[in-house]
Amino acid sequence: MTLRFTAPVVLPCDPGCSVLRNAAVDVVDGRITWVGPVAEAPPHTGAVRALPGLLLPGLVNTHCHTPMLLLRGMGGDLPLLRWLHEVMWPAEGRLTASDVRTGMVSGCVELLRTGTTTSVEMYFFTDAVIDAVLAVGSRVLLTPGVITAPGWDRLGSWEAMRNGISRRIDRDGLRSGPSERIELGYGPHAAYTLPAEALRSVAEHARERGALLHLHLAETLDEDAALRASHGSVPAWLDQLGVFGGRVLAAHGVHLSDDDIGLLAARGAAVAHCPGSNAKLAAGVARVAALRRAGVRVGLGTDGPASGDDLDLWSQARLAGFLARVTSGDAAALTAPELLLMATRDSAAAIGRDDLGTLSPGCWADLVHVDLADPAFVDPADDGQLLSNLVWAAGARLVRDVWVAGEQVLADGEPTRVDRAAATRELREVAARLHT
Amino acid sequence: MTLRFTAPVVLPCDPGCSVLRNAAVDVVDGRITWVGPVAEAPPHTGAVRALPGLLLPGLVNTHCHTPMLLLRGMGGDLPLLRWLHEVMWPAEGRLTASDVRTGMVSGCVELLRTGTTTSVEMYFFTDAVIDAVLAVGSRVLLTPGVITAPGWDRLGSWEAMRNGISRRIDRDGLRSGPSERIELGYGPHAAYTLPAEALRSVAEHARERGALLHLHLAETLDEDAALRASHGSVPAWLDQLGVFGGRVLAAHGVHLSDDDIGLLAARGAAVAHCPGSNAKLAAGVARVAALRRAGVRVGLGTDGPASGDDLDLWSQARLAGFLARVTSGDAAALTAPELLLMATRDSAAAIGRDDLGTLSPGCWADLVHVDLADPAFVDPADDGQLLSNLVWAAGARLVRDVWVAGEQVLADGEPTRVDRAAATRELREVAARLHT
Repeated sequence: MTLRFTAPVVLPCDPGCSVLRNAAVDVVDGRITWVGPVAEAPPHTGAVRALPGLLLPGLVNTHCHTPMLLLRGMGGDLPLLRWLHEVMWPAEGRLTASDVRTGMVSGCVELLRTGTTTSVEMYFFTDAVIDAVLAVGSRVLLTPGVITAPGWDRLGSWEAMRNGISRRIDRDGLRSGPSERIELGYGPHAAYTLPAEALRSVAEHARERGALLHLHLAETLDEDAALRASHGSVPAWLDQLGVFGGRVLAAHGVHLSDDDIGLLAARGAAVAHCPGSNAKLAAGVARVAALRRAGVRVGLGTDGPASGDDLDLWSQARLAGFLARVTSGDAAALTAPELLLMATRDSAAAIGRDDLGTLSPGCWADLVHVDLADPAFVDPADDGQLLSNLVWAAGARLVRDVWVAGEQVLADGEPTRVDRAAATRELREVAARLHT
Repeated sequence: MTLRFTAPVVLPCDPGCSVLRNAAVDVVDGRITWVGPVAEAPPHTGAVRALPGLLLPGLVNTHCHTPMLLLRGMGGDLPLLRWLHEVMWPAEGRLTASDVRTGMVSGCVELLRTGTTTSVEMYFFTDAVIDAVLAVGSRVLLTPGVITAPGWDRLGSWEAMRNGISRRIDRDGLRSGPSERIELGYGPHAAYTLPAEALRSVAEHARERGALLHLHLAETLDEDAALRASHGSVPAWLDQLGVFGGRVLAAHGVHLSDDDIGLLAARGAAVAHCPGSNAKLAAGVARVAALRRAGVRVGLGTDGPASGDDLDLWSQARLAGFLARVTSGDAAALTAPELLLMATRDSAAAIGRDDLGTLSPGCWADLVHVDLADPAFVDPADDGQLLSNLVWAAGARLVRDVWVAGEQVLADGEPTRVDRAAATRELREVAARLHT
């Protein structure tokens, strides 16, 4: 199937953050075949979708536990460890597979409505999560959790969790589903919730299969005080265990020394920066400038909506900018184009996916259409002001339409495949039950 | 005229941040006469407006230069002094009164659409600002600027600026317009842009008239390095000049010592906390916890949309929470109810207006109706989760309707008195001209 999208402004999110005027994006079988000014476009005979606004690639959320939408607002004023042990883990212990599907459906809709087409998810009840993603039509890199913390043994041993992922990958391949909407990886929760042998072994399984290894790392100082007392640097200890070397995505990375950052850079590990969750739980501020300077790929994440509250990656981008500036004293730290690329291209790169987060031939046609008529844009003809207004003033609220692999999954703010009001009713029924 | 509003949830923003269920707000001649559960309401014979969502008082933005909407996104990556001297002041030098009205109209609409009914404005072309506010139907505490910085002498001497305000107050009274929509005060720009005599004299004029004195204070370390070298603490020097003592609102207050904070508390001065602007310009983070502990009234402000980008006070509240938590390491610093009160009741208190920012008898019926059907609210029956979801996940995007003094000025997101598309067209014509 051949389709041409045209728009007065197209942001391909290439390395230079170009602003293309009166441009076209050609799509064949869900993938982009050509991007550039309409005047230079190749001959086209298929349908044309002429959009009035701004077209950019779907955002990539590199760290999320989306089904936690069910728990949004619970225990919001506690530090991480108390929040996990006293509120979240007990509540999650009561979730059924059906509940997780319900939370994930509403969450995927919310992600689409903010322009996020791909999320990296660490959760449990894998079938339920996949089923929800396929129902809504978004895209996921799902790394089912592997954890041995209190209460989680109801889901089996860490070996069973690991084997469940490996069997699934060996059966379906790393990527599966229509237009490869599902990618699988491994989600060993963290150094402080797994024995050394589990960390070593899960990393080995991931590396053997070329799969993403997605773990929490250095989120707070408290979480791994005991590990630091025994082993010194936790990243260095993980490295000795053989955790690094494959595709590794470390969520948070707040408390990293210069040596730790050097290690991540040397091993090619990436970081999912989650400024909102880290700030709200008073975990701290990740050293984004130092990470980027060292050559570590840094993507953006919202974290789960129980701590991150909304799934809006634009507000995370703005917060990343605010925090980079106040911690450095540099008013040019993380400019609008840098933040836009961080939410798209850099986030895709952080998870090892050069076929997402950018509009160029060969990439999936995951597209976001933003309303350009809103006064958030005061002088749309000026490239610099357009990018500034998009990132700092427009963001999620102006997302109108979204396509995944060329299929429209959001039309004028509403999901095309599921009924949002019905999904909300189901969400609230489950949430109310969790409170009783 | 007698009108009753009913809603399943009413947040009066009283000191305890109560959540009223199935409640009513009675309004006579624009002012609230009764608030409480419908079951306990007094007999009522007038019209009833039964709302399906959540009703709360209009937010109060304590520091803004709203017409700078015209300049949104210009020079966004510069520190304060370069941004002012190289970009803003030259651009503002080209603004006509008509331009300022155009920027203010679109800005007032944007304020209403985020649920802000009152803004404290420091700007010039007073007639144009007032005209815009009355056209849209919002409410303003306007403190026309008094400044002697480069280029500003086109508007006359500081004495002329001061006299212009005094004459207007002496003629019209402090408050004027339909339902007292206009309050006037004095806006001496800052210690570093005015001679000592001007600061002393403007404060005297304000105090004599019971008017608000609204100035920038301690925004950056650079701005008043010369003053500090000569006089030590700038707040202490201002105090010697007699600046404090009346109604004083200090915008920003980022770089304040313990002694400075003690002085503000002793003199009853308030602070307009503008976390977004301070972060974006890398000015720093105000010591909100210390200010509140000392008993200083702290309100929230967006600052002008050239540095603050949007006029969304909800996102400022969230950012205030994030910054309070990362700077203190306390995950319970500034909870959702505290942030909601900061944007409403505390902001009204900071400008000396106990008839705004809260729903209680005698207050103006400035009301905001928020969509409660959105999945931002996952368990609306739970008071704690409702408040958390409102502040951290819902905010501006769910504002549907707004009333000022009982008159509906926003209906389903659109202003009732002006045409938003036409206002945007005018805004863009002026913005495009400013770039050429």
